[in-house]
Amino acid sequence: MITGKNYVGNRLAGNGTKTYTTFNPLLNIENENEFVEASTEEINEAVFLASDAYIAYNQKSGKEKAAFLNAIADNILALDDTLIQTYCSESGLPEGRAKGERGRTMGQLRAFAALLDEGSWVDATIDTAIPDRSPAPKPDLRKMLVPLGPVVVFGASNFPLAFSTAGGDTAAALAAGCPVIVKSHPMHAGTGELVASAIIKAAEATGMPNGVFSNLNSSGIEVGVQLVKHPQVKAVGFTGSIVGGRALFDLAAQRDEPIPVFAEMGSINPVIILPEALRNRAVELAKTYAGSITVGSGQFCTNPGLLLGIAGESLTQFVQNLSDEIVRIEPSCMLHPKIVGAYEKNKQTAIDQSGLVVAADYGSEVNVNYARQAVVTVEGKTFLENTKLHHEVFGPFSMVVQCKDAAELQEIINNLEGQLTGTIISDTNEIAKYPQVITALQNRVGRIIFNGVPTGVEVCPSMQHGGPYPASTDSRFTAVGTQSIKRWVRPFSFQNWPDDLLPNELKNANPLAINRSVNGKLNSDAI
Amino acid sequence: MITGKNYVGNRLAGNGTKTYTTFNPLLNIENENEFVEASTEEINEAVFLASDAYIAYNQKSGKEKAAFLNAIADNILALDDTLIQTYCSESGLPEGRAKGERGRTMGQLRAFAALLDEGSWVDATIDTAIPDRSPAPKPDLRKMLVPLGPVVVFGASNFPLAFSTAGGDTAAALAAGCPVIVKSHPMHAGTGELVASAIIKAAEATGMPNGVFSNLNSSGIEVGVQLVKHPQVKAVGFTGSIVGGRALFDLAAQRDEPIPVFAEMGSINPVIILPEALRNRAVELAKTYAGSITVGSGQFCTNPGLLLGIAGESLTQFVQNLSDEIVRIEPSCMLHPKIVGAYEKNKQTAIDQSGLVVAADYGSEVNVNYARQAVVTVEGKTFLENTKLHHEVFGPFSMVVQCKDAAELQEIINNLEGQLTGTIISDTNEIAKYPQVITALQNRVGRIIFNGVPTGVEVCPSMQHGGPYPASTDSRFTAVGTQSIKRWVRPFSFQNWPDDLLPNELKNANPLAINRSVNGKLNSDAI
Repeated sequence: MITGKNYVGNRLAGNGTKTYTTFNPLLNIENENEFVEASTEEINEAVFLASDAYIAYNQKSGKEKAAFLNAIADNILALDDTLIQTYCSESGLPEGRAKGERGRTMGQLRAFAALLDEGSWVDATIDTAIPDRSPAPKPDLRKMLVPLGPVVVFGASNFPLAFSTAGGDTAAALAAGCPVIVKSHPMHAGTGELVASAIIKAAEATGMPNGVFSNLNSSGIEVGVQLVKHPQVKAVGFTGSIVGGRALFDLAAQRDEPIPVFAEMGSINPVIILPEALRNRAVELAKTYAGSITVGSGQFCTNPGLLLGIAGESLTQFVQNLSDEIVRIEPSCMLHPKIVGAYEKNKQTAIDQSGLVVAADYGSEVNVNYARQAVVTVEGKTFLENTKLHHEVFGPFSMVVQCKDAAELQEIINNLEGQLTGTIISDTNEIAKYPQVITALQNRVGRIIFNGVPTGVEVCPSMQHGGPYPASTDSRFTAVGTQSIKRWVRPFSFQNWPDDLLPNELKNANPLAINRSVNGKLNSDAI
Repeated sequence: MITGKNYVGNRLAGNGTKTYTTFNPLLNIENENEFVEASTEEINEAVFLASDAYIAYNQKSGKEKAAFLNAIADNILALDDTLIQTYCSESGLPEGRAKGERGRTMGQLRAFAALLDEGSWVDATIDTAIPDRSPAPKPDLRKMLVPLGPVVVFGASNFPLAFSTAGGDTAAALAAGCPVIVKSHPMHAGTGELVASAIIKAAEATGMPNGVFSNLNSSGIEVGVQLVKHPQVKAVGFTGSIVGGRALFDLAAQRDEPIPVFAEMGSINPVIILPEALRNRAVELAKTYAGSITVGSGQFCTNPGLLLGIAGESLTQFVQNLSDEIVRIEPSCMLHPKIVGAYEKNKQTAIDQSGLVVAADYGSEVNVNYARQAVVTVEGKTFLENTKLHHEVFGPFSMVVQCKDAAELQEIINNLEGQLTGTIISDTNEIAKYPQVITALQNRVGRIIFNGVPTGVEVCPSMQHGGPYPASTDSRFTAVGTQSIKRWVRPFSFQNWPDDLLPNELKNANPLAINRSVNGKLNSDAI
């Protein structure tokens, strides 16, 4: 069922010369399928097809596009065990996670389908003419969101389904009306091809134009670089490392025609544990956080990599409890030997910094490709002075910073880079005593959590997943939830345009019965 | 009343060493006031104050910020003749234009004040908790828009009021909750200082924090460069040339923390005149377009610099009519000798291109600093082959392209750079025969106009002013209308946050009675 080829539009193609395989980290062996990296010809053909498909795809109604997205979800489910087994063999993640992530992926596709089916997401805004206004007549103006053009999506290593081939970026871009070219993640190319086949089948069954979707294999950076530099590509979605995301952002910014790059990158997700909470709930908090730090081998962008407290007996006790809990948890397999290697190296770099104390490091023998979770501590002053300690260690690792007082705590927060999330652990009413700490945290993050853990990103309209750089390259948008469609669209105005030539969304009769703002009033009436 | 100093927050400061004057192009003399360019110290102080003010300004309610914006409008009006005379002496523009632009500027400020007063613009979105959801509880999530931080605004040469010191960018940023530092345009530094004094007075009277606004003088690029590179600056607004806008975009993209630049730049605003309209209305169209090309000496970003038609007798007749009309119009004064010089140079560069025919060039003697309006023609093939002809000639200049057929017309449109506007001149039903031409045009512009002129940008919610690059650096936003507030904000989520600590916009009781999306339903109810 897996051919190892690229989907260049609806066609399987593999005339390239570079091949590679994926790796099963649990068994520590290469998987058997061989993948052919996309050739320059295939890249150009995929972009050409996407550029052509852009026009035809936009003539499809919202309901037709919704049927396409729902068909993708159906086809993904129909891949059944083949998909789940391939996913597990390419990621080392357990079956339960595979199924959960499949459910999330399908849920995202169906949420966008529902958005299109309802139709009001285009933000239709109408100001009708006042021909006799003085000194000049007021024209009729009607605005709605239209798609940017072909979008390139880079699959993420840590979400082979939900943030990859048919993941959030792809679902949002297809919903927006943008053809998508996926630069498949090399660690799970088989999973990628299977999901791509589900998309292509859905496109054919629902009459979508050839080129609305392509899936290109790639083991290095060349395919991605060619795609981002291609003049017909109009936007880029990426989930991954700061180095990778920044490189794409720079490439896109240097083009003759710069294009938007929405990259969701690294984050250490600071957690502030206030003194009373620490005093009253150290045992419970240690248990909760040991779980959040190690869930999915710590391979989540919302992993809590930084715990901040005010130094004292309670914090020392908490560190002890957390250390006890963390070494009690069974280590688990990471996604790939390269990921394990990077984790151990980055962890060691952190540990080697002056002033760092290892509180817990899983010492026993672990299976090959398994991560040894660790907790370290450092004084606030040392953390402030050494920005190397502010870098993400991707994996089950967390650093407890012992601040000397609330002022130092606030200073540390002010000096953090942008983050996806920030969390406050507080006893009732305690939080009200720290308004400046809260304000400082709000200015550094995209989402703030009260008495919880940052892991577990709810997919709903109120979710903001993205934050000040380097959490993401454009904090004005979210990567999760249906609002993420806004990354791939632009507003477009029609002035004095004939009613019969307007898109249905803007016609006087409001044939789609969507909500519109007409002369400042929101309603779904005809004009 | 004009001191020539900078407003560093509320303080007048001028410890710099570089001075300059503004110029009266009508009288062809330097104006008497001397302006002191901001020093590095003053730049850093302005940013420091803005960064501090950001926190305090955000604690002001929407209604308090609205009072601030309305007070600015009141104070601008109170500057009365002093402002109008300074405006005219620094721009060569007539008093009627000055008063019209003042009205527009005040209208923009009041429109944002009304937006804040009503309050729903923050896009409050709430998903309430489902604690007993299986397999995991659903958290309570509440999202709204929050300001990015201090914004730098570059005043435009061609709108000393409406796109400068208290213009659209400033009004939108202050409404969003962002302190603003204006890099004053050197051609109208006196107008800028007067308006800045109105803003500072309003800030003091309405209790806004020192640093919410600064106005820095600058005759060259240094002040702007320092501001855009400053780590505490979080976004940039610019209206001007492609070269200037792109330079700022590049600087901002190269920062350690890249920041968004919203630059509204050049545009030649293609106008497609379909054959039947040309045959039936050549005389009327020529008159209308001669007016649109020369209004305000052609110094509008929506000036129609490119007229496209299908070659033939009617087009030849139209060119003749347009030429007759255009030389009949009295030349008018441009903004500055540098602008006249650039206009004459760019016009000559265009005329010197092979294949270009001058249809009309105002040949008589004109007053010093007045523009000689011109119309040129070229064949479609020549235009396609020479992209130098696609560049804007800022001033009363337009190029008529004689396409051999509809296919060539479409190819030309496809090969244009991004534009602010595109216009179709069509007889009834004629437009329906050119679906591909319309589609091609839509893909290149931000606003499409039927049977009108692109000049005259209505300020209303349905206006899109911005388009594919290089019309603007981010086509996902508009520079005109209250929606332009979206450039300066980011979504922010609160998870399980205590109700009494939430901003009023997100509290259960909905004390501001704003429209919110609660569990997918739009209403203004309490929860």
